[in-house]
Amino acid sequence: MERDLTNKILAGDVRAGARLMRGIEDDLPEAIEELRNLYTHTGKAYIIGITGAPGVGKSTLVDVLITSFRKRKLKIGVVAVDPTSPFTGGALLGDRIRMGKHATDKGVFIRSLASRGWAGGLARAALSIIHVLDAMGKDIILVEAVGSGQGEVDISRVADTTLVVLSPGMGDEIQMMKAGILEAADIFVINKADKEGAENLKLQMEQMLDMVPQVEGDWKTPIILAQAVNGKGLEEIVKAITAHKRHLISSGKIEHRRKERARLELSEAIEHSLRLHVSEILDNGRFQKLAAALVMRQIDPYSAAEEIVKETLTGKKPRKSG
Amino acid sequence: MERDLTNKILAGDVRAGARLMRGIEDDLPEAIEELRNLYTHTGKAYIIGITGAPGVGKSTLVDVLITSFRKRKLKIGVVAVDPTSPFTGGALLGDRIRMGKHATDKGVFIRSLASRGWAGGLARAALSIIHVLDAMGKDIILVEAVGSGQGEVDISRVADTTLVVLSPGMGDEIQMMKAGILEAADIFVINKADKEGAENLKLQMEQMLDMVPQVEGDWKTPIILAQAVNGKGLEEIVKAITAHKRHLISSGKIEHRRKERARLELSEAIEHSLRLHVSEILDNGRFQKLAAALVMRQIDPYSAAEEIVKETLTGKKPRKSG
Repeated sequence: MERDLTNKILAGDVRAGARLMRGIEDDLPEAIEELRNLYTHTGKAYIIGITGAPGVGKSTLVDVLITSFRKRKLKIGVVAVDPTSPFTGGALLGDRIRMGKHATDKGVFIRSLASRGWAGGLARAALSIIHVLDAMGKDIILVEAVGSGQGEVDISRVADTTLVVLSPGMGDEIQMMKAGILEAADIFVINKADKEGAENLKLQMEQMLDMVPQVEGDWKTPIILAQAVNGKGLEEIVKAITAHKRHLISSGKIEHRRKERARLELSEAIEHSLRLHVSEILDNGRFQKLAAALVMRQIDPYSAAEEIVKETLTGKKPRKSG
Repeated sequence: MERDLTNKILAGDVRAGARLMRGIEDDLPEAIEELRNLYTHTGKAYIIGITGAPGVGKSTLVDVLITSFRKRKLKIGVVAVDPTSPFTGGALLGDRIRMGKHATDKGVFIRSLASRGWAGGLARAALSIIHVLDAMGKDIILVEAVGSGQGEVDISRVADTTLVVLSPGMGDEIQMMKAGILEAADIFVINKADKEGAENLKLQMEQMLDMVPQVEGDWKTPIILAQAVNGKGLEEIVKAITAHKRHLISSGKIEHRRKERARLELSEAIEHSLRLHVSEILDNGRFQKLAAALVMRQIDPYSAAEEIVKETLTGKKPRKSG
């Protein structure tokens, strides 16, 4: 990777930004070096998370949100960590990037994250990409992530405002609630609201939200009926985002959220660094031998892991990697 | 946790097994101690993974598979790591466990894994639960996991035979292919085959599988049309599982798969152990201070992480945790 990417990125150079993002995805040590330089210049963008099950219409919503924000002359970055998103492109059977219309707009930068090879590190990668977009001068960064409530990127830990998108008749929307998505949402969007069951879903959601104890001054999570495909409900969504941002700032909660995000990123960085140290120790054929012994049930994985970690923490000095 | 759980579990004691699983989920050090003892007694059960998007009917398929295996007098364990599965029970709006009919069958043990708190450690938890079921004498262990192709539990790394369940008209099934599910599947099941588009989906799948280069003696991934809800296609699925098991054994590939699984478990155990060491170091209020400095952009997370890891690896000796 060339030198001085940082200055180019701070000047908004799109190609320099793209290059660093590729470096991040390839996990190049130089990329982390650049991120180090960039980091102090970040923290200005407002981050909006859009999550929900596959098929609820997250990408369409992102699409119309981009258009709406662009009308206000805001510069937009998009990070798609959803494997079923059209943003991730390259679909097998010709499902071409629907977002092509933003491709020529210099005020919009869209970046997808491949899901393979990021196991456990998806949050770290997403946060790094967000930093680059932030440093490039984007005002708003939209992060689209599939949300099944599993241990994927918990978008609410990354975003300032989190939109949880549902749609009627998915069957699973209610079950997802128990996976903690209720607390994760700042705004609920019931998309495809022309479909049967939308009003009923809204009612159920309202009942569920009513069960959450509220203190005065708390944010009251709105539930918005929308049809992203034709822009219905869009204005209401944008207003709710603005209101939520105002609420975070006036209540001082934005500091808390950003501290949580910093904690997350620090944890991820520590784990990443440790993983590198362990993989150096394991690189010498030792892993293969241990795996074979495990299959034969000659040892157990917990004792083996303990032994290796002990070694890492006390004995051998790990070599510096180039 | 009481002593001597190991012997009780090896004798098939259901309550002892349940107790250890709870200990695993609560991450008790004693639970790992018991797992250590159990581990050498495991490796006998055959593990079948069932994955697919929410709504394709994974749980129904698991249900009828249990019934079918029980007719053959096989003892069954089930691990559900799918937050939308009825197995995980306790749904908010009265979606009661459909699987109640197996509840009184002593030959069936069903265990769900809560998704919260397992970020990054879901594979480790699933593998631990599998070991307990294995030690309890289960012949077959079914692992149901939602599969969006993200970094959740990659079930094919845990299972001997992996079933990928699709259903027509989900819209996302083809996109999922690109996320590597094509290589993950040993058997494809197109469920709800009475729905429009089933034959067409099968055709598309066949074309995709045809693009994968095959060597003689390779397993030929079957695509089975089924209606789990009324048992249609079930016999064919069971036959395909048996055939795949035979193939793994005769080709020697089963050793390879189990070695891969051991590698996965070892990696997870190492990371877990390291994480414990780091959290000890960070416990002393340092984390809070660092997070605050990060929000102020006084430091960057990569330098902070490096500093902490360096300290862990060289300086302070981590205290033993009780």
